[in-house]
Amino acid sequence: SDVKKLLVLPGDGIGPEVMREVAKVVQWMQTHRGLKLDIAEELVGGASLARHGVPIRDEVVALAREADAVLFGSVGDPAWSHVGFDKRPEVAILRLRQDLELFANLRPAIVFDALVDASTLKAEVVRGLDLMIVRETVGGVYFGEPRGIETLADGTKRGVNTEVYTTPEIERVARVAFDLARVRGNRVCSVEKCNVMESGLLWKEVVTDLHKREYADVELSHMLADNCAMQLVRNPRQFDVIVTGNLFGDILSDLASMLTGSLGMLPSATLGGERADGRRHALYEPIHGSAPDIAGKGIANPIAQILSFAMLLRYSFKREDDAAMIEKAVSSVLESGLRTVDIMSDGKAQVSTSVMGDAIVNEL
Amino acid sequence: SDVKKLLVLPGDGIGPEVMREVAKVVQWMQTHRGLKLDIAEELVGGASLARHGVPIRDEVVALAREADAVLFGSVGDPAWSHVGFDKRPEVAILRLRQDLELFANLRPAIVFDALVDASTLKAEVVRGLDLMIVRETVGGVYFGEPRGIETLADGTKRGVNTEVYTTPEIERVARVAFDLARVRGNRVCSVEKCNVMESGLLWKEVVTDLHKREYADVELSHMLADNCAMQLVRNPRQFDVIVTGNLFGDILSDLASMLTGSLGMLPSATLGGERADGRRHALYEPIHGSAPDIAGKGIANPIAQILSFAMLLRYSFKREDDAAMIEKAVSSVLESGLRTVDIMSDGKAQVSTSVMGDAIVNEL
Ligand SMILES: CC(C)[C@H](C(=O)O)[C@@H](O)C(=O)O
Ligand SMILES: CC(C)[C@H](C(=O)O)[C@@H](O)C(=O)O
Repeated sequence: SDVKKLLVLPGDGIGPEVMREVAKVVQWMQTHRGLKLDIAEELVGGASLARHGVPIRDEVVALAREADAVLFGSVGDPAWSHVGFDKRPEVAILRLRQDLELFANLRPAIVFDALVDASTLKAEVVRGLDLMIVRETVGGVYFGEPRGIETLADGTKRGVNTEVYTTPEIERVARVAFDLARVRGNRVCSVEKCNVMESGLLWKEVVTDLHKREYADVELSHMLADNCAMQLVRNPRQFDVIVTGNLFGDILSDLASMLTGSLGMLPSATLGGERADGRRHALYEPIHGSAPDIAGKGIANPIAQILSFAMLLRYSFKREDDAAMIEKAVSSVLESGLRTVDIMSDGKAQVSTSVMGDAIVNEL
Repeated sequence: SDVKKLLVLPGDGIGPEVMREVAKVVQWMQTHRGLKLDIAEELVGGASLARHGVPIRDEVVALAREADAVLFGSVGDPAWSHVGFDKRPEVAILRLRQDLELFANLRPAIVFDALVDASTLKAEVVRGLDLMIVRETVGGVYFGEPRGIETLADGTKRGVNTEVYTTPEIERVARVAFDLARVRGNRVCSVEKCNVMESGLLWKEVVTDLHKREYADVELSHMLADNCAMQLVRNPRQFDVIVTGNLFGDILSDLASMLTGSLGMLPSATLGGERADGRRHALYEPIHGSAPDIAGKGIANPIAQILSFAMLLRYSFKREDDAAMIEKAVSSVLESGLRTVDIMSDGKAQVSTSVMGDAIVNEL
């Protein structure tokens, strides 16, 4: 059938607010573009903790596994820090990534023409920026064992985490980066800290070998993570595709997205292991977090969440036209001068979450 | 006696070039300011590998242990990557940090008035920036065991590193940060990734406890490392003192220093364990690396190395006046318009390493 199964997981913080605006876009697509969806919505993160006492239920993971695509909001409300490390809201996204083997997180950093002046970087440094960070998301120090906090004989404590990467884990995410580069600027920069960490040394070796074997047509360079953070501020347009591990990817992609003027603008796609039917699992989420400081105020920017839905239409449902239509609508609304508070004020009108959502639907 | 033992370790890459300019400043201080030094100079990093086949000799570590202060250049020439992980140039600085227990690396990020326009960030965002990153330097994933690369039964490889922090390791570096904050802006921001890593959770707990017990007068906040990278680009002046672990400190301090327009401008001090005479070991080095791409061309910026010597005079030799004199000379030379190539061109004259060094000595 051409009915697609979509699982919507708004999460906590601003997640539900921005997801409400996506619902308007979804409805418009169903009415005007023949999009047929079988939509389920479930609680995760703080919202699930409040109702069910756990950050994500097994049933929800099972639904995600069956879905054609998952649209995720955000989780991480620190109001739940008392529940302990194993039950914190973040477990929801971490478990989905791991259980569905969502190993490659694609994080674009694109500067919209209308927002060149919103960045704290000079316009001439960021104008036209279009880079893609491919972040490994099911390995590294996020999941390595042993981990935990132990109390020593003298009463002091010891906190431990383990960074682990294996050849196949590195290869599969590097493959995603090389394939992407081929349809973009044909350049990959692999980032690690091989001068200090053996796991980074292996990362560099494996990427180099794979490149030699299968991707010699793509330009490959290597950069240390500290230098990369610096280069992203010095001259971000030198990059096309960056591929890196889980922890460095977390930091560098937040940094890169900030170059674009607001974290509230950027979507991401996480591609995963093979499903029963041979297709890939995929989850779409904004790069921003749950921003509990502004949650409930109706001022969050819904654009990252709406663009995440556009990415979903493109990659999981193969509806390129619909995706492009949404992206064009976002662009027009920005050109028209509408701004949410997260976008550095350039004297333009600041509007609420729902006014921004309505404006985008109106442009469709 | 009032003769101080200074150990000079230029290292590889641009290290020797910029150290040559410091020598001019040292000589001036000896001639005009009654500075009495017993100076030893030794090879480390690539330079030591070339002569002795090791990145640092035990004798050199022993000399460093006896010295009143160590002035370090930089190491890391990748031309030596074939010697293997255990012998790479970086081992020189890593071993000094570990053997002398140099646990607290103070990395200021200061925007010189003359260079406000050299940053890729807008002038209004960075003008007057003066933040200090206190980076833990003898723990974390840099030194944790187990570590290494193993080959599995199926021929694939597995790279492992271990992030470890204990209560006393966290406390002593946090103490340095709180003490510094008291003589600065009285605010500390502690940075970790406690929503994913238990070692970060312990970090946050220990800093919070210490604050409650001994530093309640200082304002303390906590931030996730990914958010911190973002905030450094969004609004860097919100920070006074940042305290963080080895790996996050490495990345965030390079990032922070780039906000100032050039990495070639910033010094650092690393304070260590107690020496035999009750004083602290201390090592001074620029934040920048060995920059092999520009080594030997005579174009490197000697300012970071010269300012590292100024910090040494201030902290290890208690010669505040001499330190301030050097800093004022640097500032004057920048005001006069002299620039090395690393400083973003703002139409000012670009000069060589030695012209910059001479100009600073002339201003003394
Ligand atoms: C919520 C948190 C666990 C997550 C991460 O660190 O991966 C977030 O920061 C992200 O970047 O998606
Ligand atoms: C040379 C290298 C080992 C070092 C580090 O990573 O600590 C350098 O980047 C630094 O920041 O001092």
